[in-house]
Amino acid sequence: MEEKRSIVLLSGGIDSATTLAIAKAEGYAIHALSFRYGQRHAREIESARLLAERMGVISHLVVDLNPDLFSHSALTSSSPVPKGRTEEQIRSGIPATYVPARNTVFLSLALAWAEVLDISDIFIGVTAVDYSGYPDCRPEYIEAFEHMANLALKATVEGRMKIKIKTPLINLSKGEIIKRGHALGVDFSLTHSCYDPTPGGYACGECDSCQLRKKGFKEAGIPDPTPYAR
Amino acid sequence: MEEKRSIVLLSGGIDSATTLAIAKAEGYAIHALSFRYGQRHAREIESARLLAERMGVISHLVVDLNPDLFSHSALTSSSPVPKGRTEEQIRSGIPATYVPARNTVFLSLALAWAEVLDISDIFIGVTAVDYSGYPDCRPEYIEAFEHMANLALKATVEGRMKIKIKTPLINLSKGEIIKRGHALGVDFSLTHSCYDPTPGGYACGECDSCQLRKKGFKEAGIPDPTPYAR
Repeated sequence: MEEKRSIVLLSGGIDSATTLAIAKAEGYAIHALSFRYGQRHAREIESARLLAERMGVISHLVVDLNPDLFSHSALTSSSPVPKGRTEEQIRSGIPATYVPARNTVFLSLALAWAEVLDISDIFIGVTAVDYSGYPDCRPEYIEAFEHMANLALKATVEGRMKIKIKTPLINLSKGEIIKRGHALGVDFSLTHSCYDPTPGGYACGECDSCQLRKKGFKEAGIPDPTPYAR
Repeated sequence: MEEKRSIVLLSGGIDSATTLAIAKAEGYAIHALSFRYGQRHAREIESARLLAERMGVISHLVVDLNPDLFSHSALTSSSPVPKGRTEEQIRSGIPATYVPARNTVFLSLALAWAEVLDISDIFIGVTAVDYSGYPDCRPEYIEAFEHMANLALKATVEGRMKIKIKTPLINLSKGEIIKRGHALGVDFSLTHSCYDPTPGGYACGECDSCQLRKKGFKEAGIPDPTPYAR
């Protein structure tokens, strides 16, 4: 039987680490893809490297992207990262940490690599439940991307492959994702979530991403291994 | 009245130079975007720089992309570029010079920049007439990309902009494109088409792109300023 292979977008956070574990559990051999795009939490790339190594991927490619293309986000500029927002505030709209067209750019580059490697399945750890209101995490966006992708490639137009964008977390809450990853043996101490880590590498504990993480571990009933600054 | 602005994808060839001239003639102020992705004809980036300068763009961003992502194309690898093919052969399928997901990657990065600059109109010089059979030059592909783009961005989902992918050349032959560009004052001596230039910078005269270029000038009845090696 031919080996099943997939590309997994690996940011180094809880969601992408769990997505990688799910793809492995489904029998896929993994090519992991990460991006350095000027994010202030570039530390997540180190997490991605450690996770890729620990979880036994076939290859891990880290791609540099010109930060000028994304430069008005609080994740890539010197604008302040929102802190201490309530859950209602977090859910109330698209926050300052939104990065323009991020998933579109990541998926497009994954698509090029997929055709090069002759791989049709691309995993991305988006969730439409406990998410930060990013438009490019919604099912209708993912469907539109997949439709476009199948019109774009030589291999799909010639009928040799059909691109599938696989989103195993799309209907899971953060707590459910953590439970799932935990059951699959993900070492969450290697993952990174914080948008605004301290110089020493501690998670701030107050940004939306830290808050979602804390809440997720609580809901899952699993001890949170993260060293928070507060 | 507010200034109309657009992003123009500028490869440095005849089509993108003419597209830039059309956008200018329509009253747009231009932000030009070019990519270095390991193409063996990286000389086209120099053409793009000269054209951008000569044609008075507001800004010109050249973005580097990791060649590993695209590496099985004859444009980015050491595979031979097809030479001396007949027009029938050129039209008979997707050639070795196809670059995986190229327009998808270029348009996605343009999309990120568009949101950063608050620009809704993106010009790309694709044509479905005298083209090389690339799937990502067809109208149905462009429509699918536009649909996806409008689901992807904060600015579109919040109703502040609607992305338009403008393809003014889509129904024009190479000869018609050259006539149009000529009428708008494009200096075609600055443009570059050849997929496999000589070390001294001469166009090979035999690749599909050189052949299409020669034929186009002939059809347009305009002298071809290109120094061909043969």
